[in-house]
Amino acid sequence: MSYRSGRHFLQIPGPSPVPDRILRAMDMPVIDHRGPTFGDLGARVLEKLKGVFKTECPVIVFPASGTGAWEAALVNVLSPGDKVLMFETGQFASLWHELATRIGLDPEFIPGDWRHGVDPEKVAARLREDTNHEIKAVCCVHNETSTGVTSRIGDVRKAIDATGHPALFMVDTISGLASADYRHDEWGVDVTISGSQKGLMLPPGISFNCASKKALDAHENSGFKKSYWDWGSMLGNNASGFFPYTPATNMLYGLEEALKMILDEEGLENVFTRHKRHAKATRIAVEAWGLEVLCLVEEEHSPVLTTVLLPDGHDADKVRSIILEKFDMSLGTGLGKVKGKVFRIGHLGDINDLTLLGALSGVEMGLKLAGVPIKDGGVQAAMAYLSETA
Amino acid sequence: MSYRSGRHFLQIPGPSPVPDRILRAMDMPVIDHRGPTFGDLGARVLEKLKGVFKTECPVIVFPASGTGAWEAALVNVLSPGDKVLMFETGQFASLWHELATRIGLDPEFIPGDWRHGVDPEKVAARLREDTNHEIKAVCCVHNETSTGVTSRIGDVRKAIDATGHPALFMVDTISGLASADYRHDEWGVDVTISGSQKGLMLPPGISFNCASKKALDAHENSGFKKSYWDWGSMLGNNASGFFPYTPATNMLYGLEEALKMILDEEGLENVFTRHKRHAKATRIAVEAWGLEVLCLVEEEHSPVLTTVLLPDGHDADKVRSIILEKFDMSLGTGLGKVKGKVFRIGHLGDINDLTLLGALSGVEMGLKLAGVPIKDGGVQAAMAYLSETA
Repeated sequence: MSYRSGRHFLQIPGPSPVPDRILRAMDMPVIDHRGPTFGDLGARVLEKLKGVFKTECPVIVFPASGTGAWEAALVNVLSPGDKVLMFETGQFASLWHELATRIGLDPEFIPGDWRHGVDPEKVAARLREDTNHEIKAVCCVHNETSTGVTSRIGDVRKAIDATGHPALFMVDTISGLASADYRHDEWGVDVTISGSQKGLMLPPGISFNCASKKALDAHENSGFKKSYWDWGSMLGNNASGFFPYTPATNMLYGLEEALKMILDEEGLENVFTRHKRHAKATRIAVEAWGLEVLCLVEEEHSPVLTTVLLPDGHDADKVRSIILEKFDMSLGTGLGKVKGKVFRIGHLGDINDLTLLGALSGVEMGLKLAGVPIKDGGVQAAMAYLSETA
Repeated sequence: MSYRSGRHFLQIPGPSPVPDRILRAMDMPVIDHRGPTFGDLGARVLEKLKGVFKTECPVIVFPASGTGAWEAALVNVLSPGDKVLMFETGQFASLWHELATRIGLDPEFIPGDWRHGVDPEKVAARLREDTNHEIKAVCCVHNETSTGVTSRIGDVRKAIDATGHPALFMVDTISGLASADYRHDEWGVDVTISGSQKGLMLPPGISFNCASKKALDAHENSGFKKSYWDWGSMLGNNASGFFPYTPATNMLYGLEEALKMILDEEGLENVFTRHKRHAKATRIAVEAWGLEVLCLVEEEHSPVLTTVLLPDGHDADKVRSIILEKFDMSLGTGLGKVKGKVFRIGHLGDINDLTLLGALSGVEMGLKLAGVPIKDGGVQAAMAYLSETA
């Protein structure tokens, strides 16, 4: 028996479900990536993509995962041995820190409890101590996919500015872009890193660097040897809509459709409002169950996912596997330090009220089947909020 | 703004949502319908299709809607002016009766209240009166899509047999096939009529007649002039997998995939059990809301859809339009005599527990938004039942 009726509920915090419209847009013949049709597509997409970053700066598209875009960001603006300031907000911040170490940077990792975003005060305090300006970059994760905690990027920018420190500001919003409010230019971010498989509702496979003027200047002086990740050859070609090596053609067809849906049809601000509303409905359900959300700061709750902490003695992965088996829904596992203690509910991208309520129903039933002591009424409370605000 | 996030909830009692696997199976080049590849496909599908009818008899496939298959069934085994016995179990039974009148039959229409299936006792009583055997056929709708009431076809057969009356037994299971238990051979049905867009999970476009030996004999003596609907040219070609006129090639690709999913993978009995379980969960929700289901007989509840009766003074179509607007879900409208008084929840085909709970959430929220006096707890009660039986 391999056919299981109905649609799988993919409620992990990305990859998110790809809308049929995007699947159909990608379901086209591959074209010559050196021909004029591709050049027009490339030029259109590279220009329009700026809208979701809220930027006038160039966006570079890599045929690579988000991890590749992390590495690209670092090797384009820094040099081996450079000191960079990083913050342990969760598993992905930790992995980015590991990557920085591995490629030969000298990262300083400010510890964290995984329940708060980056503290702007701590950023300012550390930069003030750095009177010799040895720190070349401040690196933050905007939306921590492992915890459901966002960092207040605008406030971090203000904290950096208050110190007058010249460090570059680099932000990973791989799981935040096009779901959580993000403003590359207004927040003075020098390099923004993102990916395709979250708010943009595409399959995984392409990722992005958005680079400020200051970042492009730093690129001129970067001491890293690089080829695949080099912004130079990308930007030299991109003006005409072409790429220095084979681009992921059909992903770009999909990206154009996604940008049309997000920017021209639903509207980016409506997308943000929708994500915040679904996140709030989810937290209302979690509270009604009598469980705790991992994030401890009201203004740092992620609109993309909600991480649910289980009472001691209950295995979150057992809950997840019961839900997968009984109700055909995938939830995010606990990563790193919170493995087994939490599960994550993704509510990003192509989702609506009834799918969210189906998902919360699966969580409520699964928690009870797993013997986690919860109160009834989570779905009921979420319905009350969603219908009030419908 | 034309992009609306998330997947539309198509909870009408058919057409039902088409699984991606079937869409992909159909998404293939059209082939020569007189070539050997098509012949093999046709032969395989015509043979395998017998499984869902539980028959050894031939099944004829028309490129036509269910309405076409109704007409085909009548004109192949009857003659102009023939008396047939029909039962007013709902809107579709009424439409079939109209069609019979229009083509020149002489149908006798036994009135009904739309809340019960065909009464086997009434069938027997009427046939006993017909001592001259003027009635040539007894025509029943198995699953009334307008009411959510099924007729007990096996019991009707027994009632006919008890009278010794030679009338043909003709059954419409357009919305029942491959969702509700159905047995062409065991129940001695002479002509079964069905369609593609319900339990078979295909788009609308093809429909079926399954004909017993007795029906094939009656075909020899039928006085109707016919060409498109003539079983003779169909059966003459079908042995080799071909059709007398252009078949709906890509629908047959989809049908082969559907039969594989239903018969080889999930298993037909499991499909029936799943539909019954979802129907019961729906009735539990309706009862918890304090509303009434249209069907009045416990063993006649449809596993395919549930028809919900609203209290006097409440417009069911207003509820439906609020639900469509606020929650992007389509429910079935009330048809004919019950227009405005009921709405119909489809729970057939490619559905699972979480989609059903999302749908029931939309109904619960929509009823309250429309000001229908209901009690909370319908979704909660359905969750309790579904998780007990998961």
